[in-house]
Amino acid sequence: MDARSMWLYRWYYSDMCQWILSFIIFLILSLAFIETPSSFTSTSDVRYRMAPWNPPCGLTEAIEVLCLLVFVADLSVKSYLVAWVQFRKNLWLLGYLLVLIVSLMDWMVSLSLVCQEPLRIRRLFRPFFLLQNSSMMKKTLKCIRWSLPEMASVVLLLALHLCVFTMLGMLLFTGEKQDDGQDRERLTYFRNLPEALTSLLVLLTTANNPDVMVPAYSKNRAYAIFFIIFTLIGSLFLMNLLTAIIYNQFRGYLMKSLQASLFRKRLGTRAAYEVLSSTAEGDGQPRGIGVKPQDLLQVLQKVQVDSTYKQAIMEKVRSYGGSLLSADEFQKIFNELDKRMTKEHPPRPQYQSPFLQSAQFLFGHLYFDYLGNLIVLANLVSICVFLVIDADVVPRNRDDFVLGILNCVFVLYYLVEMLLKVFALGLSGYLSYPSNMFDGLVTIILLGLELSTLAVYRFPHPGWKPEMQGLLSLWDMLRLVNMLIVFRFLRIVPSMKLMAVVASTILDLIKNMRAFGGILVVVYYVFAIIGINLFHGVIVVPPGNGSLAPDNGSVACGSYEQLEYWANNFDDFAAALVTLWNVMVVNNWQVFLDAYQRYSGPWSKIYFVLWWLVSSVIWVNLFLALILENFLHKWDRRSHLHSVSGDLETTYE
Amino acid sequence: MDARSMWLYRWYYSDMCQWILSFIIFLILSLAFIETPSSFTSTSDVRYRMAPWNPPCGLTEAIEVLCLLVFVADLSVKSYLVAWVQFRKNLWLLGYLLVLIVSLMDWMVSLSLVCQEPLRIRRLFRPFFLLQNSSMMKKTLKCIRWSLPEMASVVLLLALHLCVFTMLGMLLFTGEKQDDGQDRERLTYFRNLPEALTSLLVLLTTANNPDVMVPAYSKNRAYAIFFIIFTLIGSLFLMNLLTAIIYNQFRGYLMKSLQASLFRKRLGTRAAYEVLSSTAEGDGQPRGIGVKPQDLLQVLQKVQVDSTYKQAIMEKVRSYGGSLLSADEFQKIFNELDKRMTKEHPPRPQYQSPFLQSAQFLFGHLYFDYLGNLIVLANLVSICVFLVIDADVVPRNRDDFVLGILNCVFVLYYLVEMLLKVFALGLSGYLSYPSNMFDGLVTIILLGLELSTLAVYRFPHPGWKPEMQGLLSLWDMLRLVNMLIVFRFLRIVPSMKLMAVVASTILDLIKNMRAFGGILVVVYYVFAIIGINLFHGVIVVPPGNGSLAPDNGSVACGSYEQLEYWANNFDDFAAALVTLWNVMVVNNWQVFLDAYQRYSGPWSKIYFVLWWLVSSVIWVNLFLALILENFLHKWDRRSHLHSVSGDLETTYE
Repeated sequence: MDARSMWLYRWYYSDMCQWILSFIIFLILSLAFIETPSSFTSTSDVRYRMAPWNPPCGLTEAIEVLCLLVFVADLSVKSYLVAWVQFRKNLWLLGYLLVLIVSLMDWMVSLSLVCQEPLRIRRLFRPFFLLQNSSMMKKTLKCIRWSLPEMASVVLLLALHLCVFTMLGMLLFTGEKQDDGQDRERLTYFRNLPEALTSLLVLLTTANNPDVMVPAYSKNRAYAIFFIIFTLIGSLFLMNLLTAIIYNQFRGYLMKSLQASLFRKRLGTRAAYEVLSSTAEGDGQPRGIGVKPQDLLQVLQKVQVDSTYKQAIMEKVRSYGGSLLSADEFQKIFNELDKRMTKEHPPRPQYQSPFLQSAQFLFGHLYFDYLGNLIVLANLVSICVFLVIDADVVPRNRDDFVLGILNCVFVLYYLVEMLLKVFALGLSGYLSYPSNMFDGLVTIILLGLELSTLAVYRFPHPGWKPEMQGLLSLWDMLRLVNMLIVFRFLRIVPSMKLMAVVASTILDLIKNMRAFGGILVVVYYVFAIIGINLFHGVIVVPPGNGSLAPDNGSVACGSYEQLEYWANNFDDFAAALVTLWNVMVVNNWQVFLDAYQRYSGPWSKIYFVLWWLVSSVIWVNLFLALILENFLHKWDRRSHLHSVSGDLETTYE
Repeated sequence: MDARSMWLYRWYYSDMCQWILSFIIFLILSLAFIETPSSFTSTSDVRYRMAPWNPPCGLTEAIEVLCLLVFVADLSVKSYLVAWVQFRKNLWLLGYLLVLIVSLMDWMVSLSLVCQEPLRIRRLFRPFFLLQNSSMMKKTLKCIRWSLPEMASVVLLLALHLCVFTMLGMLLFTGEKQDDGQDRERLTYFRNLPEALTSLLVLLTTANNPDVMVPAYSKNRAYAIFFIIFTLIGSLFLMNLLTAIIYNQFRGYLMKSLQASLFRKRLGTRAAYEVLSSTAEGDGQPRGIGVKPQDLLQVLQKVQVDSTYKQAIMEKVRSYGGSLLSADEFQKIFNELDKRMTKEHPPRPQYQSPFLQSAQFLFGHLYFDYLGNLIVLANLVSICVFLVIDADVVPRNRDDFVLGILNCVFVLYYLVEMLLKVFALGLSGYLSYPSNMFDGLVTIILLGLELSTLAVYRFPHPGWKPEMQGLLSLWDMLRLVNMLIVFRFLRIVPSMKLMAVVASTILDLIKNMRAFGGILVVVYYVFAIIGINLFHGVIVVPPGNGSLAPDNGSVACGSYEQLEYWANNFDDFAAALVTLWNVMVVNNWQVFLDAYQRYSGPWSKIYFVLWWLVSSVIWVNLFLALILENFLHKWDRRSHLHSVSGDLETTYE
């Protein structure tokens, strides 16, 4: 290994370089918002939508080719670093190469057709850049692939369940001696095989639950049993079994990855020990005895680590004096790296006067915080009261005098509180608490807003009326102020012990779920692009219905048109994302199935069912598995930590 | 302990006695269907409902008092058996006493008012009899009680989340410079504080997902972010965290109860050993050496155990000869009890002729089963094809000739298949497979139906038309036949390995979930009774709307009236159960909230929200925890069994 490769390796894996790569990936992914069905309209509702601004041909393409060139550079560096033999075996790198070639070719086709090409294949491949850049996402994908066979068995069972009940349902509701209920049931939900299958598939997601049984159940109670048994087996048993299967694959996932990273770290430390001890050997010492502390100190000087850690390690090394370090001691020294640095708050300022000292004690005390929380609560209640009072008043008749005064008073209190805390803790002490940072920021913004309100509208007086002046009206200011206060209220969360535990679990979760979030982004991206290609411009407003009177009686209740879902379409990327989200949440997705069947054709169902399977069935279950894994891991670690001594603590951090 | 108590104990815990007790519990619970708002109408739809038959005063009361007297006897036996000191400490028994006293007093009040009392408190207490009779259910309740504090913290966080977003939403949608979208959003979902809270609570269950954002989102894309973030935090994070917390409590629940029962069994065996070895001591042997096999054999003769197990144990005892049994050997002997008896199929009949032998080989082969499955599949496909063809034909114009012929042929094949299998395996061999039992039963019923069809309508000929004769028309017969064939199709499930594993998990689950099912019954019962008392007769058909033309334009889309949910009410017990089921499934529950708010008052919301919390939030999560626990337990046991030798297998069975 030569120095140049080493330098290249260091440079490539430097924060700066990786950050630029991430930004480039973000850039190329976000191009989808700008490209031709651009999302730059205030609404995606087909009734009110303006013609969007479309970028001139060459603008997005120029950005894109720059990004692609960066990826080419990235690929070449990567392949140089792993060497040709490894490169041939690495499917991800080969895929990277292929995707880049296809993208560049597609880009040239695009440019030669002056951006009028019907299909941009490269848009579909963009999420690949995100995937291949994250090892966690690759690992997660592998995990998903492992659980596919078992998931397939449950999905097969689900399909069988669906088929059997569809046939039973069709036989049940197409009798000869039909009563009225059976007949209406047949006509509405079991008209033919595909429709019956769709009805029951939607019932599997419970999205049409009471509706599907209403016509038959209104006539005879017994028909409810059919639907209840179907939901019981399908939705409660089989769907939850799917969750169990997915969770089973992910069990120990976090623990394993922790162990692997710990193992790698230990291995690295050991290797360093071996190298350094062989240096010691050259100095006339017998081989394999240990490392000279001064060697280690020399190396540490050159290493790039966070200075606080470096300080801690060097101190520890010096504490061993001049004697050689054994392998165990060497390992122990580097355990310092795992210890979470407990950030020490700067000392409180020392005041001479006893009055100032007691004031400092008072305002630095925990109860002062509680008082602050109480005041925020009071403020919140006052906002609530005014919301309730003003609910039935038309906005322009509202009197904002009392609310204005109250807001003034509360903002003044927050200001005083902040100043007193700064006085008690010192400025740096105040800023060393994140909760104080947040509070202080909100207070300053509130103060600014309040001052500007006072400057423009004078001090509140009875009958104080909001008038439109400048960009924001007084009411808008007040609203903004009040919303900020609502956020400020969140500071009570850490004050309650139980909630703090739950909240910290959620925060932990967010850290651990970057890979899952990435996969969600990939899936959303791919499906949104496919959706745009399939259904772009399919939904059109029926003539004469573009006006503001859509509640005419001509449309059936519960249809896309009556519910005015016009904004949920695939006409641009942002709209497609929201539409996909709404289908993922599953409720009322039969409306989309029905609408796209009418506007685009019966095959559109496949797209939506596929999306339901991928997002709602697989991803949501994956997410639940992740939450379970995180929570149980945290729980076990906590109870484990309670039982063993603090020394082991560092191992599992 | 005297012989009489012993006899009473044995008698009380005999199968017969316990079975009678269970039946009495079932009886008193099912009284709710018969009692005054009786469920004996074909429908509960307020538009079509006939006046129900109401039992004469004294009928249900007579049954009830009989049941209560049985419970009194049960309680006295139980308290006699546990003795007074234990009785005073046992809260369950004290509760039992209290419930019985209250029930009997309420019963007397009822009778003295000639069944015209406004409230029957004892109906509410009936599920208690079910609860106190099952130790598993008591254990599960304890488990639930343990997880309540943590669940409370998440529910608190959910409430906070809801409050914060309600305030933000109200501030967002009640601005001064309101555009049309904001204003419509405010008027529809954020009119006042309770309504905004309800809208967001329903959104938390995703039951009004795209609808709630439609008015604002149609005007501006950005409003979607508010709703998406709300759903993301509330529905994905917090709700799933609740699942994790509940699962965490139930982790190891099965394993623990298995270990406890194993421990009790071992303890019992050891005690028996000590008793028997002290008998041996009397015969001049030194103390604690062992048990004489003949003593054990004598005891075994008198014990009531399944004869196959007894045989196995006695054989094992005899195999030790005359030497004394040590404690270990004694334990090992009783391990026989844990061994699952692999049922041996009776030997195949021996035929002399080589032709018959090869025929036996042929029809006893696995491939013959596969052929049968294939034929069932073909039959199913033919039914499907006819369903599709007949879908658009009015039932009375259908020609059933081909389907009739096909059914004849298939039934004939099933008959021949059955006979051939009986020939190959022998009658007892055929019946020793449960799948064959099922097949044979279905075949015989099919044959009976087919023969009666042929007898009544003659052999199918072209233009064969169904005519109404007797109770069932030909079409009904055909339908019945076809439905049975659909069930027959289920026999393919065990043929596919993956599906067989999943199916066996589900069967295991059903065995283990009796306690959970019992708790569900209790909860449903209590809520249904409360619901009947609160909302009985509240829903009335508006005058002039009782006809069959309910789709008039006067009712708003998506309302209870437009969706014709009339059958979902609390007017009798069966209807209440279905209504509660529909609310538990959560989809469209805002319709119920809205309807009962209008018909009964705003406080009805509390009832529904409480039911949602108990059923959908707690019980469904509990159920998921149970499935996870069962599946992982089974999984771990399987992988555990693969790694250890067969001897340990018996321990974990």
